[in-house]
Amino acid sequence: MTRPSGRAVDQLREVSITRNFTCHAEGSVLVCFGNTKVICTASIENRVPPFMRGEGRGWVTAEYGMLPRSTGSRMGREAARGKQGGRTVEIQRLIGRSLRAAVDLEALGENSITIDCDVIQADGGTRTASITGACVAMADAIAVMQERGMIEGNPLKQMIAAISVGVYEGKAVLDLDYPEDSNAETDMNVIMGENGGFIEVQGTAEGEPYSREELNQMLDLAGKGIGELIAMQKEALK
Amino acid sequence: MTRPSGRAVDQLREVSITRNFTCHAEGSVLVCFGNTKVICTASIENRVPPFMRGEGRGWVTAEYGMLPRSTGSRMGREAARGKQGGRTVEIQRLIGRSLRAAVDLEALGENSITIDCDVIQADGGTRTASITGACVAMADAIAVMQERGMIEGNPLKQMIAAISVGVYEGKAVLDLDYPEDSNAETDMNVIMGENGGFIEVQGTAEGEPYSREELNQMLDLAGKGIGELIAMQKEALK
Amino acid sequence: MTRPSGRAVDQLREVSITRNFTCHAEGSVLVCFGNTKVICTASIENRVPPFMRGEGRGWVTAEYGMLPRSTGSRMGREAARGKQGGRTVEIQRLIGRSLRAAVDLEALGENSITIDCDVIQADGGTRTASITGACVAMADAIAVMQERGMIEGNPLKQMIAAISVGVYEGKAVLDLDYPEDSNAETDMNVIMGENGGFIEVQGTAEGEPYSREELNQMLDLAGKGIGELIAMQKEALK
Amino acid sequence: MTRPSGRAVDQLREVSITRNFTCHAEGSVLVCFGNTKVICTASIENRVPPFMRGEGRGWVTAEYGMLPRSTGSRMGREAARGKQGGRTVEIQRLIGRSLRAAVDLEALGENSITIDCDVIQADGGTRTASITGACVAMADAIAVMQERGMIEGNPLKQMIAAISVGVYEGKAVLDLDYPEDSNAETDMNVIMGENGGFIEVQGTAEGEPYSREELNQMLDLAGKGIGELIAMQKEALK
Amino acid sequence: MTRPSGRAVDQLREVSITRNFTCHAEGSVLVCFGNTKVICTASIENRVPPFMRGEGRGWVTAEYGMLPRSTGSRMGREAARGKQGGRTVEIQRLIGRSLRAAVDLEALGENSITIDCDVIQADGGTRTASITGACVAMADAIAVMQERGMIEGNPLKQMIAAISVGVYEGKAVLDLDYPEDSNAETDMNVIMGENGGFIEVQGTAEGEPYSREELNQMLDLAGKGIGELIAMQKEALK
Amino acid sequence: MTRPSGRAVDQLREVSITRNFTCHAEGSVLVCFGNTKVICTASIENRVPPFMRGEGRGWVTAEYGMLPRSTGSRMGREAARGKQGGRTVEIQRLIGRSLRAAVDLEALGENSITIDCDVIQADGGTRTASITGACVAMADAIAVMQERGMIEGNPLKQMIAAISVGVYEGKAVLDLDYPEDSNAETDMNVIMGENGGFIEVQGTAEGEPYSREELNQMLDLAGKGIGELIAMQKEALK
Repeated sequence: MTRPSGRAVDQLREVSITRNFTCHAEGSVLVCFGNTKVICTASIENRVPPFMRGEGRGWVTAEYGMLPRSTGSRMGREAARGKQGGRTVEIQRLIGRSLRAAVDLEALGENSITIDCDVIQADGGTRTASITGACVAMADAIAVMQERGMIEGNPLKQMIAAISVGVYEGKAVLDLDYPEDSNAETDMNVIMGENGGFIEVQGTAEGEPYSREELNQMLDLAGKGIGELIAMQKEALK
Repeated sequence: MTRPSGRAVDQLREVSITRNFTCHAEGSVLVCFGNTKVICTASIENRVPPFMRGEGRGWVTAEYGMLPRSTGSRMGREAARGKQGGRTVEIQRLIGRSLRAAVDLEALGENSITIDCDVIQADGGTRTASITGACVAMADAIAVMQERGMIEGNPLKQMIAAISVGVYEGKAVLDLDYPEDSNAETDMNVIMGENGGFIEVQGTAEGEPYSREELNQMLDLAGKGIGELIAMQKEALK
Repeated sequence: MTRPSGRAVDQLREVSITRNFTCHAEGSVLVCFGNTKVICTASIENRVPPFMRGEGRGWVTAEYGMLPRSTGSRMGREAARGKQGGRTVEIQRLIGRSLRAAVDLEALGENSITIDCDVIQADGGTRTASITGACVAMADAIAVMQERGMIEGNPLKQMIAAISVGVYEGKAVLDLDYPEDSNAETDMNVIMGENGGFIEVQGTAEGEPYSREELNQMLDLAGKGIGELIAMQKEALK
Repeated sequence: MTRPSGRAVDQLREVSITRNFTCHAEGSVLVCFGNTKVICTASIENRVPPFMRGEGRGWVTAEYGMLPRSTGSRMGREAARGKQGGRTVEIQRLIGRSLRAAVDLEALGENSITIDCDVIQADGGTRTASITGACVAMADAIAVMQERGMIEGNPLKQMIAAISVGVYEGKAVLDLDYPEDSNAETDMNVIMGENGGFIEVQGTAEGEPYSREELNQMLDLAGKGIGELIAMQKEALK
Repeated sequence: MTRPSGRAVDQLREVSITRNFTCHAEGSVLVCFGNTKVICTASIENRVPPFMRGEGRGWVTAEYGMLPRSTGSRMGREAARGKQGGRTVEIQRLIGRSLRAAVDLEALGENSITIDCDVIQADGGTRTASITGACVAMADAIAVMQERGMIEGNPLKQMIAAISVGVYEGKAVLDLDYPEDSNAETDMNVIMGENGGFIEVQGTAEGEPYSREELNQMLDLAGKGIGELIAMQKEALK
Repeated sequence: MTRPSGRAVDQLREVSITRNFTCHAEGSVLVCFGNTKVICTASIENRVPPFMRGEGRGWVTAEYGMLPRSTGSRMGREAARGKQGGRTVEIQRLIGRSLRAAVDLEALGENSITIDCDVIQADGGTRTASITGACVAMADAIAVMQERGMIEGNPLKQMIAAISVGVYEGKAVLDLDYPEDSNAETDMNVIMGENGGFIEVQGTAEGEPYSREELNQMLDLAGKGIGELIAMQKEALK
C-alpha cells in the first residue's frame, strides 16, 4: 500500500502552529495540518452562563464553523440556512468537551473561555486540528487571565491534542487527509493528554466492522502522533 | 465497591424486547433496559432522499427524541423550542450510522428505512437501548419489505447491538444506570455486530483521562454484554 | 347504517385509564380509547410563568405531540422541522384551556402544572382521549402537591372529560374512530364537567352545514358519553 | 344589566363593508364591526398547492395578522419574532375552513383563492369580522375569475357570515366588543351559511361551565345576527 | 421624455397625511404618495431596551411590513415564512436611523418610541412615504409624552422627510412611482431635515454607473421635493 | 485635526491584495485595508437560481460574515443564533448589488458566481474592503470560466472598488479606521467603477445632518481613493 500523499503509515502531515494570528482575541492561533487550516481563537469573559452562576466554577465551551468555500464545492452558509448542521453540532460538542478535560474548572473561578474554530481550508482532520490548535489558544488566553489578575494559579492541568487514525486499504494509518478519509474503512479520532491518558476515543466503521487488533494498531499510532503534536504545542508556546 | 443497583460489574439490567408494540409501523419494538424504556419504530418507503436518487442504493436514517417527562425533571419539548438540541442530534446520527452498518444498502434497492427512537422513560443508556431495539424493529420492517416484494434477498447483514460501559468508583462496569452514569469517571458506548467486530466505540473521560488498561477492561465487558443482547434479539425475533 | 366498528351509535370504544404508567412524572396516565393510545403526564413546579408572578395564582398549561409513526404513514417529526404545526398548536391550546376550567387557579397558589399529551398510537379522537386522560394525571399531580405541602385544600373543582361526536352517514354517532372521522359530515368535540356544564363545544361542518336538530342530537350523545367517561375516571382514581 | 356600549342584547355594532378598498387584489374589502377594522383581500392563482395537483379541485386558504399597534398596547410583530403565535394559527385555520364551506372546490377547478385578513384596529370580534368581510372579498375574486374565463359556472355555493355571542353579566349578548369580551363568562363564535345551517360553532367557558339553556340562547342570538350580516353582505355586493 | 404619469420632472405625486387614522397608537398617520399608502404608528413606552438602561437616554426604533396583497402579485407573509426578508430589514433600519436623527435622545429620557410602517398599497416609494408619515406620527406621540409628563421640553429637533429621485429615460425625475422605479437607470433615496441638511443619501445605479452631474441634478430635485413635504407635514400638524 | 492613525486626510491605509489565498475556490483573495482583513472567495456554478432559469442570463450574489472574534469583544455566531443580523443582511445585499454592476449578466450565460466575504479581523471599513477584494476574486473566477469554456468573451465590464469616507472632527477624511468610524459625524460608503461613474453612494449622518459642501468634499476624496484602489487591483491581477 502507498498512501496518496506518499507518507509513511505513522507519519503526520506537516504541522504548523502560528500564535497571535489575529489581533483581538486573547488567544489566536492558525493551525495547519497539511492543507487543513483552522483559525482557533480563545475569548475570555469574567462570568459564566446563568445555569452555573454562584457555584464558583468556570466554563469552557466551543463553537465550530467552516467557511462556505473551505471545501471543494461550496457549502451553504449555516447562518443563512438558519441552523447549524448535525456534523457541526457534533464537532463543537467534542471540541468543548475535550478542552474542558484540560482545565481545572474550579481553579478558573467564575470565568469563561469560549473557543471558536473556523476552518478556512479543509483537507481532512479539521476537528483534530481544531482541538490541537485551540489548546494552544486557550493556553495563551489563560496567560492573559493571569496577567489581568482574573485568576490565581494555573487552571491548565495539561496540554491535550487530537489526531485521526484509520484503516486505509487494510492498513492502520496516522493523520488521514481527505483522499484517505473519504475512502477509509475505519475512521477514529483520538484525543489524549500529555500524560498519555485518553480523553476521548471515537472510532467508526465506515464499511465492515473493525477488529480488536485493528483498534489496538490505531491507538498505537495515535499515541505516537499525539506525542509529537504535544511537543510541537510546547515548542510553539515557548 | 457496590453498584447502586447491587448488580455484578458484568451484569446487564433486566432487558426486554417487545415486538409489535404499536400497530401502524412496519417494525415496532418497546425495548427496556431496566427502567429505561424506548419505543423504536421502523418505517419503510419505496424511495430514497433526493441526493441519492438513481444510484440504485437504499438508505437508513434515524431520529431520536425524549418525551418531556421521561426524565426526573421536565425537559422543554424540542418541537416547541423550535430545534433539536445538540445531544439529540449527536445521538440520532449515532443511531443511524450504526444501523447502516447492519444493512447492505445495495441489496435494499432504492428504498428507505426511517428509525424513530422515542424515550418514554429514561434511566441511563437510552442510546444503547435505542440501537438495540431499533435493530429488531428494522429486522421486522425488512421482513415486511420482503413480503411486499419490495426487495429480493436479505439486506440485513447481521444483527447489531449496543451497550454502555464505564469506570465507576475506579472499576469498570457494564450497562450503567442513571445513578452510575451521572457519577462515572469514564463513559463509553460500544456498538458491535454479531460477528464480534466493532461498529462504533465512543469513550469519554468525564474527569481524569483513562488508561489503555481501563479501556481494555471496558471493551471486554462490552463484548460480553453485547453477546447477551444479540442472543436476546434473536430470541425475540424467533 | 352500520358503524365500521359495529358499535351502537351511542357506544364508546373500549376505554382504559392506567395510572402510574411512567415513573418520573407526578401524574402519569396511559389512556386508550380503542386503538387510540396517549401518554398523559402532569408535571408540577413551584413557580408560575413570568407574566403571572406575584399575583398569587397558579397556572395550568399543556403541550401535545404525536410520535412520528403513531399514524398510518409516518409524519415528519415536529422537532426536526423546527416548528409545531397548526393542528398541534390548536389542540394543545384546547387541552390547556379545558383543564384550566377544572382547577381553581387561586387555590393552586403560585404553582404550575404542565400537561404533556403524547400520542403513541392514533385512531381518531386523540384530543378527546388526551383531555380525559390528562384530567386523571392532573388529579394525581394535585395529590402529590398536597402531600408535599405545596397547597392547602383542593384546587380541583371537578373532573372534566371530552368526547367526539359527529354525523356519519346521516346519523349522529358517539366517539368516532379514524374510519368514521375521515368520512364524517360533521365533527364535534365536546368537553364537559362532571356537573353537566359545557366547557367547550367545537363543531365543524366537513361538508354541508349541519342543522340545529343535528347539533342537539350530537350534544345528547356527548352528554351520555362524558357521563360514562367521568365514571371511569373516578373508578380509576379510587 | 346594561352593556358597556348601551346596545340591546341582540343588537349588532354598526357594521360597514367597503369593497375595492385597495387596488391590487382581485377582492379587497374593509370591514368594520364598530371599532374593529379589518382589511380582507382575496388573491387568485391558477394553480393549487403541490399536494392537490392533478385532482381537478381548487383550494381556499387564509392567513390572519394584526398590525402591531392595532391593539391598546403594542404587540410584537410576528414577522420579527420569527413565528406566528398560537392564537393567530388557530384563527387563520378557522377562517380558511369556514370559507371553504362556502365554495364548491370541484367547480373552482385547479385554482386557488388566498384570503388575507389584516386587522388594522381591534375592539373584539376580529375573527368574526374577518370571516364576514372575507366572504365578500371572495365573491369579488370569484367574479374576476369568471370574467377572466378561469372558471365556468359559479363555485360560490352560498354566502357565509360569522358573529360572536357570549354570556356577559349572566345574560346572553350578541357581537361582543372588547370591554365585554374581556369580561364574558362564556365566549362563542358561530359561523353560519345563508341557508341557516351551522358551519362552525366554538363555545368556550371562560369561568364556570355554561348550561344547555345558555347555549341555546346564544345560538338564537347568533342566528339573528348572522341573518342581518348576510343581508348587509348582499347589499354590499349589489 | 414624458413620465408615465404625465407629471413634470420636478413634480411630486399627490400627497396626503391623515392623522389619528387608527385609535390606539399615540401617533397614527395614513400617508399617501399617490397610490402608495402606508399606515405609520408611533408607540411610546417608559423604558428603553436592556442594552441602554441606566444611561439616561431614550430610543427610537422602527419596523416595516407590507400586507401580502399590497402589491400586484401576492407576496408570502413574512410572519408565515418565519423571517423578515433582506429588503424589509434594510428598509426598517433606514427608517429607524432617519427618525433618530430628528430626535434629541438625551431629551427623550429613558423612554422609547417604536415606529411601525405597514404598507397597505404599494406603488413605488414606500420607504420614503414611510419616513415622511412616521415623522408626523412621532411628533404626535411626543406631544402625548409631554401631556403625560413623561418628558420635559421638546426632544423633536426638527421635522425630517424623505423622497426618491432617479434617472428615468436619461433624465432626473422626482418621486418615482412603480412604472418609473422598475425601469429607472438610477434610484436614489434622500432624507433631509427641515434645515436643509442631509440625513441619508442612498443612490444606486440599476444599470450603468451615474455621473457626478446626474447626482447633482437628483439632489437638487430632492431638495425641492423635501421642502414641499416638510411644508405639508407642518400644515398637517397644525 | 490629527487623525488617530496620523494619516493625511486623503490617505488610504496600507492596502494589500493576495490572490490564491485558499486553494479550493475559483477565486480566493485576502484583502487587507490596514488591520481589516477579509477573505473573499468567488465560487462558480453552471446554473442559476430557479427564478432565473431559461432566461439566458447569469447571476452574481454575495454573502458576508464576521468570525465571532474578528472584533474587540466576541460577537455571537450567527449560525448559532439561527439568523443573520440586520447589518449582515444589509452589507451582503450591497456587495452583491455592487458586483453585479461590474458584470454583463447576459454575457455570463446561465452561470452563477457566489461571493463569500468573511472578515477574519475588523478595524473599520469591512464592507468596502470586501467589495474591493471580491472584485479581484471574481475576475479570477471569470478567468476560470473562460478556461473551462463555460463562457465566451469577457463578461467583466470593468473593475469596481469601494471606499469609506466621512466627516471626522469637522473634516472630510478618506478610509476611516475603527477609532474614526465610531466617532465620525458622517459616514459614507462609495462604490465606483474604473470609468469614474458611481455605482452606489450611501451617506449617513451619525449626529447632525451634513451639508452639500461636505458631501462634495467626501465624494472628491472617494474618487481619489478609488482610483488608487483600482490601480492596485489591476497590479494584483497582472
